[in-house]
Formats: sequence, structure tokens, C-alpha cells
Amino acid sequence: MARRRLATRQRTTARPAAEAFTQPIFAYAPGAILPEEKIEAIHAASLRILATMGMRIQSAEAREILVAAGAEDAGDDIIRFDPGLVEEKIALAPPEFLLEARNPARSVRLGGRHAVYSSVGGPAFVSDLDQGRRAGTYAEMCDYLRLVQGLDILQQEGGGPFEALDIEQERRHLHLHHAQATLLDKNWQPTGLGRVRARDGLEMAAIALGTSREALTDRVVFTCIINSNSPLVLDGPMAEGLIEMARHGQATVITPFTLSGAMSPVTIAGALAQQNAEALAGITLAQCVRPGVPVVYGAFTTNVDMRTGSPAFGTPEYAQAAQISGQLARRYGVPFRSSNATGANACDAQAAYESQMSLWAAMLGQAHLVNHAAGWLGGGLTASFEKLIIDAEMLQMMAAYLAPLEVDEAALGLAAIADVGHGGHFFGTAHTLDRYATAFYAPLVSSWENHESWEERGAETCAERANAVWKARLAEHVPPPIDPGIDEALRAYVARREGEIRAGIDHPDQ
Amino acid sequence: MARRRLATRQRTTARPAAEAFTQPIFAYAPGAILPEEKIEAIHAASLRILATMGMRIQSAEAREILVAAGAEDAGDDIIRFDPGLVEEKIALAPPEFLLEARNPARSVRLGGRHAVYSSVGGPAFVSDLDQGRRAGTYAEMCDYLRLVQGLDILQQEGGGPFEALDIEQERRHLHLHHAQATLLDKNWQPTGLGRVRARDGLEMAAIALGTSREALTDRVVFTCIINSNSPLVLDGPMAEGLIEMARHGQATVITPFTLSGAMSPVTIAGALAQQNAEALAGITLAQCVRPGVPVVYGAFTTNVDMRTGSPAFGTPEYAQAAQISGQLARRYGVPFRSSNATGANACDAQAAYESQMSLWAAMLGQAHLVNHAAGWLGGGLTASFEKLIIDAEMLQMMAAYLAPLEVDEAALGLAAIADVGHGGHFFGTAHTLDRYATAFYAPLVSSWENHESWEERGAETCAERANAVWKARLAEHVPPPIDPGIDEALRAYVARREGEIRAGIDHPDQ
Repeated sequence: MARRRLATRQRTTARPAAEAFTQPIFAYAPGAILPEEKIEAIHAASLRILATMGMRIQSAEAREILVAAGAEDAGDDIIRFDPGLVEEKIALAPPEFLLEARNPARSVRLGGRHAVYSSVGGPAFVSDLDQGRRAGTYAEMCDYLRLVQGLDILQQEGGGPFEALDIEQERRHLHLHHAQATLLDKNWQPTGLGRVRARDGLEMAAIALGTSREALTDRVVFTCIINSNSPLVLDGPMAEGLIEMARHGQATVITPFTLSGAMSPVTIAGALAQQNAEALAGITLAQCVRPGVPVVYGAFTTNVDMRTGSPAFGTPEYAQAAQISGQLARRYGVPFRSSNATGANACDAQAAYESQMSLWAAMLGQAHLVNHAAGWLGGGLTASFEKLIIDAEMLQMMAAYLAPLEVDEAALGLAAIADVGHGGHFFGTAHTLDRYATAFYAPLVSSWENHESWEERGAETCAERANAVWKARLAEHVPPPIDPGIDEALRAYVARREGEIRAGIDHPDQ
Repeated sequence: MARRRLATRQRTTARPAAEAFTQPIFAYAPGAILPEEKIEAIHAASLRILATMGMRIQSAEAREILVAAGAEDAGDDIIRFDPGLVEEKIALAPPEFLLEARNPARSVRLGGRHAVYSSVGGPAFVSDLDQGRRAGTYAEMCDYLRLVQGLDILQQEGGGPFEALDIEQERRHLHLHHAQATLLDKNWQPTGLGRVRARDGLEMAAIALGTSREALTDRVVFTCIINSNSPLVLDGPMAEGLIEMARHGQATVITPFTLSGAMSPVTIAGALAQQNAEALAGITLAQCVRPGVPVVYGAFTTNVDMRTGSPAFGTPEYAQAAQISGQLARRYGVPFRSSNATGANACDAQAAYESQMSLWAAMLGQAHLVNHAAGWLGGGLTASFEKLIIDAEMLQMMAAYLAPLEVDEAALGLAAIADVGHGGHFFGTAHTLDRYATAFYAPLVSSWENHESWEERGAETCAERANAVWKARLAEHVPPPIDPGIDEALRAYVARREGEIRAGIDHPDQ
């Protein structure tokens, strides 16, 4: 125990000097793995799907909006899209936008050369090494948010790390948003499921920013995940959420879950054609609601394990699909969203190599929004405290890799090489002493000890060290300041809406 | 125990269909992270280092060869190189070559679009989950070689996975080569330390191929690692090994160990300028010995932990340096060697994410030879049985990622999408049934089970599954056929040389 405490103290005082709130910038060229004519073939196939099959859209309002814009009502809730309509609407989407946070210093640009890393959102379970996987509580969820707030490499919170199952489902989103709006001063994601919840998110974001829901239309505060129900269905709650967000000028992240072999063809090319069709349909709807509203091209194509039918993540096929999705999004000039996904159930080597496959594909595809960038475990059913730390390390490493190398006379260091001479060493040279403190990436959870020191400290695995790191960070956590008036207004909103929900009253502004 | 046996059987019968001896092919463009003018700046800086500082070369024969070619003897064992001489000699190196194996079906191309993955070579220790880290024996080393032989993703054995400490050092290389030549039918690396050992390797490779040492000059059977002693020293045994190999037409892999902050400047640009100078000096020497002999540009620049002075691996700086080294090697039209390195002491998440950083940098840098591609642990001091399996999985995944995606009418699958319709599933369609068996990468050690099944099977980590995998593979191992006459001739050679070594007689052909 004494040893653990010592180790923890040493680690936290050695916190990376480079840790500071910044955005990774794409300075290198993106990686294209399909030639342009094959990207065009996928594009053309998806337009054919939209023109002939169309999408089933389970919202009368959405269908009306699309038909008014020139889409064809094919009956049975199916809307067919003329290629010209799709091309025209997609061209309206901006290539990048400012995404505002409660703390203006933590507002970020999304799109262009700017990337945003977002923490895990939506799992049913929480896990840590002490208690294993379990249903989560509101108090634990708040702890998770505090860690997300403290990790500067996460520029956005991803929409609630796991369900707080000690709060009834109907009013859970209110408490989530209260926690997000007060425990974080960085941007956070809302829930896009249905109009009522979308509107509660908008109201609470407006309160947190000291403005009104109506005034939000001129500022982007949300990237709201909208999933199609593959194949080729946009369900009612998702369509409502999309419309509500777009109407308020907020960004929707249109993300089909085209699981190759199950909800889309067993070929990755076919899965991508279908993904592209569903994404373009959602983007078209958003642009019909409000021309020029920010949208993000979301991709989540992966494959199933054909023996069991369950999804696999971070596979070679997943990496190819993510990178090609980036090529498609660039073709449309729309920001691109990918993920950091793994099917592993433990914070072990598999979790890391599948996450790395996902992250490198996101980086090479130049994903502007990496959703679930930190904390995702077990195919997305679990938010892990240790994985949060391990992923943060991987993200920090990727950001450091993305920082362009200096190559000037001083960096080339020929004078130092001449000073040291043949067979010497550089430890004591002025060139080294001037730079050593910030020369290299300093790790968060990696052990660079030799085997003997590592054994002496207890031969901890990376996951065990991550356990100590999150506990130490939580113990040292400094909450971001919040205007007491804003906190009070948020509490009052939650109380009022809980009363309405208990009384069975829908959102008053419906 | 019964459960373990069952799990093992299931895993091994599910061996990837795709597992077969092939070479990864670079079909995508390499990743350039430095603009061309900065590559030229590094190139120019390294030529200045060679022209002004030169290299200390601790072999009179090597110095004579270089001076005869026009280099300047600056006294004190230092040779200075005129830029014109370096440029002229480097231009002689071939961009790719055939590397022969005992089994001709396992000969490989090295360079151009072809990659070779090589198993770990050189560690002092062996480790597995059962016994931890320890000094290794010859019997254990043979088991390791059997696993390397059986893993088709490893196209080459990397020069002895760890030291067999139950054999005296002076004659250890003879037994290593006997094991390599008989337990493997794929290509293997020799030791390049000193003329005597280099010549023993050549003699034994010749016997294994049914030819003579003299006749090897027309066939490449070796890629021999030659490390400079940074900064700017090529020691005697390495210079001798280089000359001996080049004289016999064999490929040398000139690899400076430019540890940034210790044996090279604390700036990665400076470390790369020095690496490039040392690599070009070695390549120049090889081309002076035998014009047109294959050489490989080796890179191993990484950084130290500035708090302890010990080396770190798979860091952001390492990844940048590896990728830029690929750019430099492409500038010279010389094949490029990188590595799969990690500083982790356990087969945990850190081992995987540092290895992935190394492997993606090698892939993007288009490393034609990935040395230590499988099995390396603990900063290269340990060869791990479990890491061998985990790395093989990562390499197989990378090779699958590198296989270009089919995008034709059949792959786009529009007919299947039309058949399934809105909200259906693709499990039973003809399009799926025709392809499902080979559609996706099948894992070697990853678990894609859901949490419940994974827990029921014992909640094994990836390292624990890897432990079961290598034992099962060893139990099922089928050795490659070997001509008894060749085995006999190799044994006779080892016996004769052991006698000579005991009697203090140097290599008879010296």
C-alpha cells in the first residue's frame, strides 16, 4: 500500500509538461487507400440506392420536409432521392465550424485541419479493476465526467459515459445534462433521441451559456449523434432529434451503423455504399431543414464475426472502411467523424491494438471528430475507468506524432555533433541541456522503467497503473468554476421538467 | 483445466483461413510527414557531417578500402567522405533483390513494393507467463524457432530469438545456425559480429542450400544487421562482418542506434542527420567492397527518458523518426529497415500500443524489412513467447489492411441491398453465403466474444490466450522436411568448428 502510494505520487508529479488544452492539427496529407475512380464508384452506387430504393423515414414531418424539397414519396414511409437533389443539398454544408464551450478558451474548431477527440458516450455499463463490470450510478458517472474534464487531450465530452441506472430513464437525461453543464467547462454532446430530449438539451445548453434556446441558432454548441437504423431506415425519434437540432442551427453527426455481413452487405465496398447512402440521406434532410447548417459525415462500418454474428471492432476491415469514409467525406467537403473502437473485454493488449487500428485509421482518414476516443471497452457496452486513461495516453501520443518536426539549423544540431565527437555522448551538452525538459513526449501511464525497477515496484500491468492514475487524478481534481446563478438556473430547470415529466406533461414548448 | 483444453482446441481449429506464406505488398502511397526540402536539409546535414567530422572506423582493412576509393584518411582512425563519393556509391545499390530460403517457395523479394516481417533477434532473456523472465536454453530457443517457422506471417527469422546460455559463447553461433538451417525452411539472419562468425554463417547457409560459400556471391541468402557505434564510430567486428558479407554478395542492413539525447542530439532532426550520416558511411563502404551489392538502409532512432537516460520505444518521436527514415531511404532508392519496438515489460496494453505505433510508422514509411517484428519485449532485452503470438496477430491484421479492397459491381452488392430491403438483415442472402467464409480477417488470439461468454471462459486476458495459443501450436507443430545429408553435413561442420574453437584455431580460411 505504501508502495502504491509512492508510485502514484511519483507518477502524478511527472505529469506531462505538454498536457494542455489544444487541438490536434492535421499537418500531414491524409492517407488515401482507394483510387479516386473507386471512390466515385461508391458515390454513384449510393446515389443509385437513394434513387431506386430510397430510405424508410419514420417521421411524417421529415417526409414532408423532404417531399417539399423535391424528393419523391414512394409510399410505405419510403422517400426516394433524386441524385441532383442530394448533390445540391450536400454542397450547402460548411467544411468547418466553431463549436462553443462554456469556457470560451475551450471552444474548438471542427473540420478543416482541426480534430476533436471526444470521450466515450452511451455504454450501458461501467467498469474498473476494483469492481469489474456493473450497472453505473449517477455519482460514478460524475466521477467519470470529472476525469474527462481533467484530461486536456479530450476536447469534448461524448454524451454521458454510461447510464446512471439509479435515476429513472425518463428524467435521466436532465441529470446528465446538469452534470455535463456544471462539471465540465468543455463542449459536451447531447442525446438526439426524440424531440423532447433534444429540446431539453438545447434549453440547458442555452442556460449554461447565459443565452436562450432561440438565440442558439447563431452559435454551434452541439454535435448530436444521429444513427440511421440500417439498412435504409431512419426511425422516428432519430428523425425528430435531427430536425430539432438542425432547426436550432446545431450540428448533427449522421452515423449509419452498417455492420458488414449483418445490417449491410458482407463486402466492405457494399457496406460503404450503403453507409454513404444513409449518411447522404440524413445530410440532405438536415440541409432541407436549415440550409447551411453544420453537419458531420459519420462512419461506423465494421464487420461481424461470421461464426457468432456479433460485431468486431478495430479489425483490418474496420480500418479500411474508416479511412475510405474519410475519403468520401473529403469528396463532399463535409467534416468526418470516426471512432476509437475495440471488442476486447479487458484493458489488455487486444484492447490496445484494436484501439490503435481504429485511431490510426481515424488519423489517416483525418477524422475531425473522433467519437468514443477514450474509455470505450467491450464493443461499446462498457465505459472503463482504466481504458479512459490508457486511451488518453494513446491520444496524447497521436497528437504529439501529429506535431510537425522542426528541421532548422538549430534542430539539426551539427555544432553539438561536432562538440561531442566520435564515440562521446550528448547528455551534458548545451544543446541537450537547453531542450531536455520539453524535448520528448512525457507519458501518462506508460512505464519506461527497466525490468528490475519495474519488478521491484510490483510488476504492474498498464491497466493496474491506469487504475492508480485515475484515482490520483480524481483525488487531485480541481472543478472548473461555475457561476452560481447558472448552476441555480440549471437546477431549477431540472426540477421543473422532472415535475412535468412526473405529471405526464410533454415539453411545454412542443 | 478441462475448460482450458476445450478453449485451446476451439481456437486452433479456427485458425485463420488466410494464414498462408505470402508477402505484404505496398499498394497504397507511402506516408510523407516531412516536406521534400526538409528531407534535403537532413541529407545535406549528413553529408556535411561525413565531410567534416567523418567516421571513426576501427578496422584497418575498411579504412584502406575507403581510402582506395577516394575517401580521406584524417588520422586517428577517422575517415572523411567527400559528398560526391557518397552520392556515387549509394547510387550503385539495387532498389530490391531476391532473398533466398532453403524452401524456394519461401524465398522473398526485399525492396520495391515488397515487405518482409522478421522475428525478434538478439535479446539476452526469454520470458513466458509460466516462468517469467529468465536466461534461455538451447531447447527453449529451438521451441521458439519452431513457432517462428509455423507463423506464416513471419517471412524471415531474425537471427536467434535469445541467447542459448547453456552453450559457451564462442561456439553458440554454430548451434544457432544449425537450428536455424534445419528447424526453419524460411530465410534466417546470421550474426555479423566479426569475420569468423560471419564466415561460419556463410558456410552453413551454403551447406543448407547445397552449394558452396564461394558460389553464394551470386545469390542473396542473408540480410546481416550491421550496427554503427553511435556517435560516428564503426567498430572493428562490425566493419569486418560488413566486409565479409558484402564480399560474398550478401545484403548488409546498416543500422545506427542513434538514441536521441544520449548517442545523438536531443532533437529528432539532429538524431536523423547523424543516423543518415552513419548509414550512408556504411552503405558507401559496402559499395566500395562490391559495387552493386544489396544493402538496406537501417533506422533505429528513438529517444531516451530524460529522467533516467534509458531508451524509450514506440514513442511519438520514434514513429516520426521511422517514417522520415523511410522518406530518406526512398530518396536514395535503397530498401528500408524499421522495427516493432516497445519498452513495456509485460504483454499488456502498453506493449500493444507502443508496438502499434512502431508498426504503423513502419507501414507508412514502407519498411521493406521489419526487424524484431514479433516477440520483442522490455526494450529488446527479452524475447517473449506470448508477445510472439500477439505480434503475429498484429502483423496479420496489418497485412490484411494492406490488401486492396475490391470495389466492383459484385462487391458493391446493390442487388443484395435491394433484396434485403429496408430494415432487413443480410445473414441469409446469397451474396453473404457466397462470401462469408473468407470475407473477413479471422483472428489468431483476439477474443470477439461478448462479455458473458468471455467471463464464462475464465475472463482471460489477451496474454493468457496467447500463452494457450503458443502451447497448442507447439504441440501441433509439423517440422519442415530436411534432406538428411544436409543435416549430417551441418552437424559435421559444427563438430569440426567446435574442435577448432576449443583448440584455439581461428577459422581455417582466414
